[in-house]
Amino acid sequence: MAETDAKSPAGTTGDPAPARRGPGRPPGRRAGTGETRTTILDAARTEFAARGYAATSVRAIARGANVDPALVHHYFGSKSKVFIAAMELPIDPDVIVERVFAEGPEHAGARLAATFLGLWEELAARERLLAMLRTAVLGDDNSATREFVTVELTARLAERIGTADAPLRANLAVSQLLGIALTRHVLCLEPIASTPRAEIEARIAPVLQRHLDGGPRVA
Amino acid sequence: MAETDAKSPAGTTGDPAPARRGPGRPPGRRAGTGETRTTILDAARTEFAARGYAATSVRAIARGANVDPALVHHYFGSKSKVFIAAMELPIDPDVIVERVFAEGPEHAGARLAATFLGLWEELAARERLLAMLRTAVLGDDNSATREFVTVELTARLAERIGTADAPLRANLAVSQLLGIALTRHVLCLEPIASTPRAEIEARIAPVLQRHLDGGPRVA
Repeated sequence: MAETDAKSPAGTTGDPAPARRGPGRPPGRRAGTGETRTTILDAARTEFAARGYAATSVRAIARGANVDPALVHHYFGSKSKVFIAAMELPIDPDVIVERVFAEGPEHAGARLAATFLGLWEELAARERLLAMLRTAVLGDDNSATREFVTVELTARLAERIGTADAPLRANLAVSQLLGIALTRHVLCLEPIASTPRAEIEARIAPVLQRHLDGGPRVA
Repeated sequence: MAETDAKSPAGTTGDPAPARRGPGRPPGRRAGTGETRTTILDAARTEFAARGYAATSVRAIARGANVDPALVHHYFGSKSKVFIAAMELPIDPDVIVERVFAEGPEHAGARLAATFLGLWEELAARERLLAMLRTAVLGDDNSATREFVTVELTARLAERIGTADAPLRANLAVSQLLGIALTRHVLCLEPIASTPRAEIEARIAPVLQRHLDGGPRVA
């Protein structure tokens, strides 16, 4: 795997901070490029596991890796991207949200359905998603991932939805998606497990659209 | 716990078969009432685990327990009820489907939302449901429960929906419900985890209604 900037996930929002060195930071710690990247990821995993997602800062990760925070920004772009790389997440909320709203909010349900179901078609992503689902359900050490989903995915979706109840709407859309993952790919209930992807997509698109943009409040 | 007929779950559909004794069945095996019931449940768990739900018959359970099949019917009423008792399931598909369609198909979404969310309010049911969800996600030995959900819950819901695609519709409704369970009670995503039950109920009722009775096909 090439350890270059070309590896940065698309849709980076983190500002590429100018190179600066913190006081008292020993210079010359940057050994090989790949090694530095690995050191940062190891430090990130330690910090996220110990403190969760929200309470961990790029500065703390840099301190743990004994590098300048600018270097973390240089390699990854933002805390979100460090987390994605450290946890080998197959999803980048920035990219997903961008793609989902690319054709306007009235198509967000259909785009979200297509994007999510598409992920499960890729073997590596599918296995990683299944592993995440298992870890989450077991309740083992999933607080950082849960916080990440809340802070990054829910908040970004909610920003685009824009209503006061947007975070709940985002959660409801996620609930429908995870329910599809669970019934189709984990429990393998029939007939949903063997229904063609396009059919599932067509069924859930209007439901996701409704979760996202409403329709009349029932209560 | 009183081991009497009064313990039979409501909504029994199994015909209470007339008392008959299979040939070669040793008479007088019925010791204490509770003991017989326990013996039947032990045999049922063994059979279901070995062969799954669909392939297990009341006759095979009776054989395993060394009792007359009529006795199994007497104690439990049907294979479905034996399974529910053996696996200590907090849900009886007969009862649920009856309740969901009690006010007509146009209210099925709202009734299903209320029934499902109500289950999670009862501590014992909630713990059992969480345990089932964990077992299912881990993929340990859940084939009997999966088949039970498919054969009993999906099929019964589908019967009431009545369209050609009714089994898929039933699966989709179940997917939304399990997604709520997962995000609200397992992952504890915010804000859905702390949103009042009535609000969640109001949000998912129209979605469940749509899954169950349609609206225009998109593809």
